[in-house]
Amino acid sequence: MADRLVKFEQYRHRMNSRIDDIDHLGIKRFFNLDTKAYERGALSPKTKELLGLVASMVLRCNDCIDYHILQCVDAGWTDEELYEAFNVALVVGGSIVIPHLRHAVESLDLYRSR
Amino acid sequence: MADRLVKFEQYRHRMNSRIDDIDHLGIKRFFNLDTKAYERGALSPKTKELLGLVASMVLRCNDCIDYHILQCVDAGWTDEELYEAFNVALVVGGSIVIPHLRHAVESLDLYRSR
Amino acid sequence: MADRLVKFEQYRHRMNSRIDDIDHLGIKRFFNLDTKAYERGALSPKTKELLGLVASMVLRCNDCIDYHILQCVDAGWTDEELYEAFNVALVVGGSIVIPHLRHAVESLDLYRSR
Amino acid sequence: MADRLVKFEQYRHRMNSRIDDIDHLGIKRFFNLDTKAYERGALSPKTKELLGLVASMVLRCNDCIDYHILQCVDAGWTDEELYEAFNVALVVGGSIVIPHLRHAVESLDLYRSR
Amino acid sequence: MADRLVKFEQYRHRMNSRIDDIDHLGIKRFFNLDTKAYERGALSPKTKELLGLVASMVLRCNDCIDYHILQCVDAGWTDEELYEAFNVALVVGGSIVIPHLRHAVESLDLYRSR
Amino acid sequence: MADRLVKFEQYRHRMNSRIDDIDHLGIKRFFNLDTKAYERGALSPKTKELLGLVASMVLRCNDCIDYHILQCVDAGWTDEELYEAFNVALVVGGSIVIPHLRHAVESLDLYRSR
Repeated sequence: MADRLVKFEQYRHRMNSRIDDIDHLGIKRFFNLDTKAYERGALSPKTKELLGLVASMVLRCNDCIDYHILQCVDAGWTDEELYEAFNVALVVGGSIVIPHLRHAVESLDLYRSR
Repeated sequence: MADRLVKFEQYRHRMNSRIDDIDHLGIKRFFNLDTKAYERGALSPKTKELLGLVASMVLRCNDCIDYHILQCVDAGWTDEELYEAFNVALVVGGSIVIPHLRHAVESLDLYRSR
Repeated sequence: MADRLVKFEQYRHRMNSRIDDIDHLGIKRFFNLDTKAYERGALSPKTKELLGLVASMVLRCNDCIDYHILQCVDAGWTDEELYEAFNVALVVGGSIVIPHLRHAVESLDLYRSR
Repeated sequence: MADRLVKFEQYRHRMNSRIDDIDHLGIKRFFNLDTKAYERGALSPKTKELLGLVASMVLRCNDCIDYHILQCVDAGWTDEELYEAFNVALVVGGSIVIPHLRHAVESLDLYRSR
Repeated sequence: MADRLVKFEQYRHRMNSRIDDIDHLGIKRFFNLDTKAYERGALSPKTKELLGLVASMVLRCNDCIDYHILQCVDAGWTDEELYEAFNVALVVGGSIVIPHLRHAVESLDLYRSR
Repeated sequence: MADRLVKFEQYRHRMNSRIDDIDHLGIKRFFNLDTKAYERGALSPKTKELLGLVASMVLRCNDCIDYHILQCVDAGWTDEELYEAFNVALVVGGSIVIPHLRHAVESLDLYRSR
């Protein structure tokens, strides 16, 4: 398997660039707001990324999970800490989250093995 | 308005006790697992409660929000930190979260004013 | 507390009647399709009501839960069987279902005590 | 019953004002973005409000439904047109939307009878 | 990339035909009701397709998005109008909609380039 | 097309084994609770699998649908009975379930043709 994380990042960058070309002020501002939501404020970016990851898992969005897994690893969360966050998401969201837990664990392993 | 948080806590305790009386092993174990998910592990209980709060907001469950607001305040999160978590939930979940943001802010104010 | 199930049934009948007055063919047909989905076919109405109950719980709709609780009791499901269905819904849907489990247990108790 | 729409509007304005006092830049900008999304652009505000209504119905948020019902009536949509939008939401979202259809029809009736 | 829209349409037609063969009266009627919901009534088919698109986006269903993108283009909506509808869906549904916005923009581009 | 059910089962087993290696007590207990929820109690495993299938369909999770389709077939449900369950899921969950109905029918056909 070619690393699906690489393909996801390429697709994500290509389409975000295409969306930027659309030049819709509301959409541009939403993307900007989204970026800023994870920047340092009363909470650290590290904490915010973990919030984003758990939110993505309970809402069951694999692309969002992948994005936040990468951010969480880069922010310095250890595997053991991420497993704890996965567990919170699993208990809150139930067994319907399990396929996304599989995806998250696989993404984490793929990113760590780079 | 009588404090709706007090009524919620009373209802919550009464019904959890009733559910405990049902004596269904699977349900008992789920409640136990739910409690343990927020106990100290690789992540602190304080961090886990914030994860639970954001998960509750994006899944749009007022009772779950109230429960985690109380836990987050007791765990020592400041208002400014909670507002930051609210913002992450709002950006992830969109304007459909706004009614629950109103509820969360009101619950936080009610609990702080006790 | 006046029996909230009685109030729900009155509201439900009043508004369904109002919706019927609207006389929109698509909406009328949808309501008809909804009714027919629980009638005898390859599965019994009793089984179908249990399916409707679990679907309502994982989708976290209290009014739908109340409707199907009443139907399930009338169809002959025992409390022990309903608790098992509640457990499936809880495990599939996670702790976010807990407030709706409380509601379901209270509704079941209210209806049994009539 | 005192008009629940009036109570909703009062609560909404009171809490939006309280949220404004929080003075969190991200939250302020999100509210601003939300307002602007329904202003005239390539689509008319009238069309956008109908989009907001259907989105609120399929996501099953009564407060959001009430807000957009009022906006849709003020924008000039007739009852017959709104019933059609209700029907699209019902077919897309299924019978789990029915309790929110009841709510929407009641809100529409309440607002028309002012 | 072979046009994924073509593959989706082929799969959709093949499976809808298979579902038709099942010959379940309830399912047949649901599909019929679904078709009729977008036909001319108090609202135009053009308006209804835009409602279906936004509903599909906030519910985060790529196949549904693809179906309605094609219908919306065929109904005469311009790109600028569709971007506005995308923006409403993004603001209502939040950043969790972003992967589906990418999909929608790509689908629109693919269909325009045929 | 190589049988996608086979690939799903292989992926599911590989990742469940990887998750087991993580050795997180909470996650292990959740998986155990999930397994036990479908074992004989006041309801038969056969009935419980049908509940799991309908819950998976209305929550729109293809991997969960595939898992429960296989379990339902193994438990002895006939196609006609499963179509009835599909219909309940379709009516409860609406047209947004249709892509998952296509998936479910295809999975059922694939598994029957082994």
